[in-house]
Amino acid sequence: MSVVVVGSVAYDGIETPHGRVDRILGGACTYIALSASYFAETKIVAVVGDDFDKKDEELLAGRGVDLQGLERVPGKCFFWECVYSADMNDRTTLRTDLNVFAGFDPKIPASYRSSPYLILGNIQPALQRSVREQMNGLRLAGGDTMNYWIKDYRDELLATIRTWDFLLINDSEARMLAGEHNLKRAAAKIMEMGPRTLVIKRGEYGAALFHGDGHFMAPGYLLEEVFDPTGAGDCFAGGFIGYLAEKGYDLKQGHVGAKELSRAVIYGSVLGSFCCEKFGPDRFRTLTRAEIDARFNEFKTFTEF
Amino acid sequence: MSVVVVGSVAYDGIETPHGRVDRILGGACTYIALSASYFAETKIVAVVGDDFDKKDEELLAGRGVDLQGLERVPGKCFFWECVYSADMNDRTTLRTDLNVFAGFDPKIPASYRSSPYLILGNIQPALQRSVREQMNGLRLAGGDTMNYWIKDYRDELLATIRTWDFLLINDSEARMLAGEHNLKRAAAKIMEMGPRTLVIKRGEYGAALFHGDGHFMAPGYLLEEVFDPTGAGDCFAGGFIGYLAEKGYDLKQGHVGAKELSRAVIYGSVLGSFCCEKFGPDRFRTLTRAEIDARFNEFKTFTEF
Repeated sequence: MSVVVVGSVAYDGIETPHGRVDRILGGACTYIALSASYFAETKIVAVVGDDFDKKDEELLAGRGVDLQGLERVPGKCFFWECVYSADMNDRTTLRTDLNVFAGFDPKIPASYRSSPYLILGNIQPALQRSVREQMNGLRLAGGDTMNYWIKDYRDELLATIRTWDFLLINDSEARMLAGEHNLKRAAAKIMEMGPRTLVIKRGEYGAALFHGDGHFMAPGYLLEEVFDPTGAGDCFAGGFIGYLAEKGYDLKQGHVGAKELSRAVIYGSVLGSFCCEKFGPDRFRTLTRAEIDARFNEFKTFTEF
Repeated sequence: MSVVVVGSVAYDGIETPHGRVDRILGGACTYIALSASYFAETKIVAVVGDDFDKKDEELLAGRGVDLQGLERVPGKCFFWECVYSADMNDRTTLRTDLNVFAGFDPKIPASYRSSPYLILGNIQPALQRSVREQMNGLRLAGGDTMNYWIKDYRDELLATIRTWDFLLINDSEARMLAGEHNLKRAAAKIMEMGPRTLVIKRGEYGAALFHGDGHFMAPGYLLEEVFDPTGAGDCFAGGFIGYLAEKGYDLKQGHVGAKELSRAVIYGSVLGSFCCEKFGPDRFRTLTRAEIDARFNEFKTFTEF
């Protein structure tokens, strides 16, 4: 069943201890869509400028991503530049040019509206909300957010996530949103805000899933070389929603559903780990479903006892 | 089969956001022994002063710990005082009085020498080495160390761990010892130094086990309240060695052995998590084996997918 992905399609300048690229395809929507495309029909809603490169469009189209909702407007694509610390645990944003993204008003094509799965990348909460309202027949909707919206747009964010089925968020943001340091108590508070399924991403330490039926802990995948972590969180989101869409997951599945949610978290972790192996989305040029499933099975091997 | 535990028996002054105790039983040997005592016959080698409290001796004796190797000398017990940060991720040492511990020269009672399991708490590497040499018929020997020995006693430490079967170490210390940030590569380097089994403790994020047959990742247990993390790492060590001793684990067990090592890591995590629930070793006053096994099964529930 199909997934609609809404968010940024951008260009990034990235410097890691392994090297530097001045301009490479990026944006939450890009990473989510590329990852979800291994599991389900994926449709994107985003905006690009007239500098959007044909070969980048081809990367998405080559993965079967539906680009009908990719709006093209005069001007330049969203551009973001960052540099990572030596251990890659921190990054500093050097430049953020919103460009055409400043006027982004996501319009859902008629052919997308009855898609059962919706995932909202990190954009202004009011926009996320307007997208949600343009859809009908949703089985599962949710998304991501970030510290900026939590701090300065709190009411708007709370009104938005109230109707979400799931929220994906990193640990420091979860603590900020809940106003609570303890992860378990923070999770309980956030679930009272609306999303009955909560995934807290913990970077190299894995992820924690909370749902009505309990919780699930996934370790991080140990890579011998983290080349570039840009997009890993969004790839996690894409693997998560992609797998659930492939399975036709439904919130009403109860206990069986909880196991599927855990597997979705592992697929999320798998996609996030592959993303780190090359600069930007380069790993997706060669990544196969067989490689993804093999790494999923590896997770079984190193977590079973 | 019995375990010999060598290390400090001390008094601690502890301040956490939940309160403060001026003087409570502590020391690596204490925590390791209390934890191991749920699984196997446990014998300690340590030194205390004439201020060692009868009721603290009773806590150990009450858990069946063999105190024949507990040397009593004139003077005061090792005393250590610390204060934890608000989020309890950092602690500051306020005072370290070695007292009788300054002259600690561990002597293994004849009745201990043929014990098959030996675990060396964090003490000077040369002392750890001398203990190892006093034992005969060991099946499994190893222990813990810390940044101080890694930095200032590197050669002595390397000579000591060369003959160890296992090393337990936290993640920042593993990186320091290996001179390598990436955890997987750091693990490979450390295993070349001697210990063919390596457990890297990651605090609230769990633990990673490396052995000849691959690796295993254990998540941390999510507590709703971390009351006092003092001793958690040592309790991990005690649960780990205790379980292996209970099973009569032998390095030559190969693949079956690898699964037992994983279970030992989970038992270590279980004991470490219980330790955090009360000040100092207070949780051990009521903790039962049934509670330990119940939490072990909980780990299964929240890691299976």
